[in-house]
Amino acid sequence: MPTTAPQSTAATTGLALAVDLGGTKVEAALVTDEGTVLPGTRFRSPTGPQRTSDELQAAVDEVVTAALAALPADAMLVGVGVGSAGPVDEEHGLVSPLNMPVWRDYPLRERVAAHVPGVPVTLRMDGLAITLAEHWVGAAQGSEHVMGMIVSTGVGGGLILHGRTVSGPTGNAGHIGHVECGGFDDPCACGGTGCLEAIASGPKTVAWARRQGFAGTTGEELSAAYAAGDEIAVAAVKRSGRALGQAIAAATSLVDLEVVAIGGGFSHVTPDLFEYARQAVAERVEFGFVTKVRIVPTGLSQDGPLIGAAALVHRADVLR
Amino acid sequence: MPTTAPQSTAATTGLALAVDLGGTKVEAALVTDEGTVLPGTRFRSPTGPQRTSDELQAAVDEVVTAALAALPADAMLVGVGVGSAGPVDEEHGLVSPLNMPVWRDYPLRERVAAHVPGVPVTLRMDGLAITLAEHWVGAAQGSEHVMGMIVSTGVGGGLILHGRTVSGPTGNAGHIGHVECGGFDDPCACGGTGCLEAIASGPKTVAWARRQGFAGTTGEELSAAYAAGDEIAVAAVKRSGRALGQAIAAATSLVDLEVVAIGGGFSHVTPDLFEYARQAVAERVEFGFVTKVRIVPTGLSQDGPLIGAAALVHRADVLR
Repeated sequence: MPTTAPQSTAATTGLALAVDLGGTKVEAALVTDEGTVLPGTRFRSPTGPQRTSDELQAAVDEVVTAALAALPADAMLVGVGVGSAGPVDEEHGLVSPLNMPVWRDYPLRERVAAHVPGVPVTLRMDGLAITLAEHWVGAAQGSEHVMGMIVSTGVGGGLILHGRTVSGPTGNAGHIGHVECGGFDDPCACGGTGCLEAIASGPKTVAWARRQGFAGTTGEELSAAYAAGDEIAVAAVKRSGRALGQAIAAATSLVDLEVVAIGGGFSHVTPDLFEYARQAVAERVEFGFVTKVRIVPTGLSQDGPLIGAAALVHRADVLR
Repeated sequence: MPTTAPQSTAATTGLALAVDLGGTKVEAALVTDEGTVLPGTRFRSPTGPQRTSDELQAAVDEVVTAALAALPADAMLVGVGVGSAGPVDEEHGLVSPLNMPVWRDYPLRERVAAHVPGVPVTLRMDGLAITLAEHWVGAAQGSEHVMGMIVSTGVGGGLILHGRTVSGPTGNAGHIGHVECGGFDDPCACGGTGCLEAIASGPKTVAWARRQGFAGTTGEELSAAYAAGDEIAVAAVKRSGRALGQAIAAATSLVDLEVVAIGGGFSHVTPDLFEYARQAVAERVEFGFVTKVRIVPTGLSQDGPLIGAAALVHRADVLR
């Protein structure tokens, strides 16, 4: 027996290895079955469009190896959850993240599984993982009809309907960023017109403001300008908040949501962003089942994506 | 024993009483567990916004009574399925059809149940019923990720995801007519902007054509003008087909559909309507999981809504 005993929770209940692959970084950590990251087990490495396939794989290997090495001697690794930027091929465990063009149908699940022989590995889109996290320990606890959203460099999300996750046949359900907004012409990289992501992501909101004469270049600067009452910044945030509400109203029309929990860097630009979204939803005056949807800030910490990846293991009963 | 024996299928397998409440009429019929309307059991009565609540109830009573009276002596009534124009309150069996303003939270399920003591009555939105029918005996057989659609005086629909119907907490999932289309400004009666129904329903398509100078007033006239190569008619159908495709692309982005089956009077305006919709979906070049969706004409006869209502009984295992 070591003189300093490790946390006993880890030992008695089992830990998940959580992996979150995003556009700028990959992270891994050990997460308890209560949805907390075990201190000292979180590691990160940069990703991005400039990296080769081997460099991306090395980044994944690095964080996975480091997190696994941090597994307490008396703890049990019960599973691995991988949340990935989409699109994905859930059935075959392949990923094709839009902004990592060297990875198309890349067998990420298998490559992660090679680190943990005999341990099950579950891969899902990151938006689905974050939705599971909101449902588990975040702002959507107690609801069975949920959309989780990330508003950041892109706009993504995931769905829980009737208490179970929705993946679709390919694993790509939840792409709320590519639901369109009536009256908006913004061209989208996906080929669509007026997609939410083309309007309301952080960079797209800043770019719109710049076209109106805003001098800043970042979401932080836009946030500060909004707080100072800058007219262009206010118009830009109103426009994006309104688009957010329109897309949420459309999604609620289609799948009858109860609660939408929104996180991601740009969601913090100002709390008013949520008000503008709610106002747009409230305009659907004829449909009480639409206006009833609650739009709330994420209930998760910065650990959200990792908690979501871990939920793929610890909350497997909610998965479909 | 009668000298002329009745069809034995009805007797051995059980029949459903199907009720379809729509904007212009209510219908009832007995439907076998193979999805066919029993000949001689189908009855209809007009509804519509001019009728009083008592008149609407009398219309329902009339068709239900007539269909029940047609039940063969040796047949078993196994259940009643009611498909209703929305919105509905599924949990409490209430209906609030938009164009029957005298019925708001009207207890239709209970009123129908009074005719059949001891027999279970299931009420769902008509779009969900039609989707069940497409999945059962129509164009979506064999798929577990389906949207059924009706393009007629309005635009409605329903969803089957992961092999089970999606109702949502209130029963109003499937309102594809109120998913918005980017770049379209058409105001919608629901309060939204650019909603599919505000663009692509039969009456809205004709109204748009008339604003461009089209002299006709009906979908049939628009169909004939399209067939004759009339420029305005062609532009009107292209515009509505494009909006249809945009809304389907948005829905597929959100819930990852495999097949969309479209029926309803205006869906027959020309087969080209489907081509225009497919072209709009195909523009989502970056998302294979969107462009893979198949858009097909309904595989149902004019009995579709009644078969759908009966599916609420005979296909209860698909219901959620």
